[in-house]
Amino acid sequence: MLNVAIVGPGLVGGALIEQLAAHLQSPRFGSLPIAIVGLINSKKMAVSAAPFAASDLGDWKCRILGDAAGSADMAQFADSLAKLGAPTVVVDCTSSSTVAELYPEWLARGLHVVTPNKKAFSSDLSLFRKIQALAGSPRGPSVYHEATVGAGLPVLSTLNDLVRTGDRIEKIEGIFSGTLSYLFNNFSAPGATQTFSECVGVAKASGYTEPDPRDDLNGMDVARKVTILGRVAGFELGIDTLDVENIVPEALRSVASADEFMSRLPEYDDHFAQLNSEALASGSVLRYVGCVDGASGQGSVKLMRYPLDHPFAALKGSDNIIAFTTARFPSPLIVQGSGAGSAVTAFGIFSDLIKICERFGADSK
Amino acid sequence: MLNVAIVGPGLVGGALIEQLAAHLQSPRFGSLPIAIVGLINSKKMAVSAAPFAASDLGDWKCRILGDAAGSADMAQFADSLAKLGAPTVVVDCTSSSTVAELYPEWLARGLHVVTPNKKAFSSDLSLFRKIQALAGSPRGPSVYHEATVGAGLPVLSTLNDLVRTGDRIEKIEGIFSGTLSYLFNNFSAPGATQTFSECVGVAKASGYTEPDPRDDLNGMDVARKVTILGRVAGFELGIDTLDVENIVPEALRSVASADEFMSRLPEYDDHFAQLNSEALASGSVLRYVGCVDGASGQGSVKLMRYPLDHPFAALKGSDNIIAFTTARFPSPLIVQGSGAGSAVTAFGIFSDLIKICERFGADSK
Repeated sequence: MLNVAIVGPGLVGGALIEQLAAHLQSPRFGSLPIAIVGLINSKKMAVSAAPFAASDLGDWKCRILGDAAGSADMAQFADSLAKLGAPTVVVDCTSSSTVAELYPEWLARGLHVVTPNKKAFSSDLSLFRKIQALAGSPRGPSVYHEATVGAGLPVLSTLNDLVRTGDRIEKIEGIFSGTLSYLFNNFSAPGATQTFSECVGVAKASGYTEPDPRDDLNGMDVARKVTILGRVAGFELGIDTLDVENIVPEALRSVASADEFMSRLPEYDDHFAQLNSEALASGSVLRYVGCVDGASGQGSVKLMRYPLDHPFAALKGSDNIIAFTTARFPSPLIVQGSGAGSAVTAFGIFSDLIKICERFGADSK
Repeated sequence: MLNVAIVGPGLVGGALIEQLAAHLQSPRFGSLPIAIVGLINSKKMAVSAAPFAASDLGDWKCRILGDAAGSADMAQFADSLAKLGAPTVVVDCTSSSTVAELYPEWLARGLHVVTPNKKAFSSDLSLFRKIQALAGSPRGPSVYHEATVGAGLPVLSTLNDLVRTGDRIEKIEGIFSGTLSYLFNNFSAPGATQTFSECVGVAKASGYTEPDPRDDLNGMDVARKVTILGRVAGFELGIDTLDVENIVPEALRSVASADEFMSRLPEYDDHFAQLNSEALASGSVLRYVGCVDGASGQGSVKLMRYPLDHPFAALKGSDNIIAFTTARFPSPLIVQGSGAGSAVTAFGIFSDLIKICERFGADSK
């Protein structure tokens, strides 16, 4: 049996609980030996030696993390999990650096880690190395983080297979932000009529952007994903040494509020319109792209041009796309699809859990 | 340690030996506990309790399957492998039905199976079910066949993750034949000038087709892949009940030789030209597509039209592409890239071996 404990069940963790509960109630293609045994949010926590019942999972906020639950204490949570005996995975659904810094401790205690939280893999190299070392032995605890790049899309598993089988990575190139995908797919297309600030406004109103869209436009989210891809490919990328093109106009970076930013963004529509018309005049479109260069081992995040018949130009909606150019795939191996949202992120986590289940969960079934 | 034995080392098996030998000599990202211990072709065989040396693998035709090797005997080969003790994988690199029919026997003796051979998974449902039953237990022997569809592209692993995590498959649609991809990417594109028979001629001369191109154009290879996808998705597809559009002109199906077929194909250029101009006139291109419909559980292989801004229309060279439309991915999850060739097929096999290694190989390391 594989025990699963979820830290920070919000939108993504909630979707994961839903998917796991659905599996427990009517498994398809064979029941997986998975049990949910722990939940912790910022206030409450519960750890159970016996799996939570599917009926309780259906209303976990009240029935598991309700008033009767204990007060949240992360150290005690890990303690209780480590004592359960069976292989146990901690699923970190937060985006917290503080939680990410606990992974080495969890691993040292034999707990596996699965997470969509990018922090541990894109911050200090020392933390990343520590985690790699602890998760490196074949029978030891493992770390899977497919959902840190492209949510449920098979991106990191594919990259892992490429590098472990000895393929030579020449280039990893992609559109890794649903927000920036949406923005440029709509702004930069033949015949498109919206101004850049209008596109940002629509994206913000539709909930596609962070509360302050500058947190998307500054490229840092993409930079974290590029850092993760580069490191998984074997390069020692640091997010602070990455070449990142911040497309927030310089004068608006220090503006205090998101509202003020939005109201002043139209002043820069001409700037973006010119970039766009230059691209279109050359038969290309603008796309905001993250890249790992295999020859130099360097990463970058940039506004680039792609010809109309390039797969990046044909992207729609808020889809992600990633192209691996390798010795074996000179015509790149491409993965694309929805790279954000709770259901597909939970799917990425669930897929990782199956991998751990197959490696470690069956022993004590 | 995971023992690997290869049946029918030709182009694909040879590429696999090369990739495994390269890994053994300079492992990246951690050495995998893999050893090659058996080789068998139509004439000779060798099984060794100790792994073959990397230096022998470099010249396996002479040094392992040379004159000194024993005469090929498949039953004895499996016998010797089953006695080795450590987890052992038989990699079937043939395309033989006869070899495929041996899988249940191998599995019953505890041998794992990895293969790019489509036969076992696309012929009789009874053979498929027998294999599934034998490979279904978490600690028992396993079967992986990623390379049967799209060679090394992560197609079946992705589909497996989707169905096992409870996603609902609405449609699987793709271009699964490198040959037919090449043909229609070149024939059916705005501004393309070659006739259909010229395209087939070039493809044949470039080695992209079977010796008799009718073996590509009759759709049976695609039908096998659709059958496999459908079955992995949980539908009981049979290759004989599939709706397959054979695009070999009816009068040329009974023509005796490939040469005569090629010489008479130009008689039908007008037919294909008309289909093509109709498609182009409606802003679409022709593509030869395999499809599994999740609602009906039926499969089909058909010449279809796709609008120019569809990812299938933008396909280049002889690439494969596959789109999974599911409840979680209404905008489909797409995988594309080279889906044929020995290096990428060997990569698909090697990736499967890593999965078995992680599940079973570490026990006795």
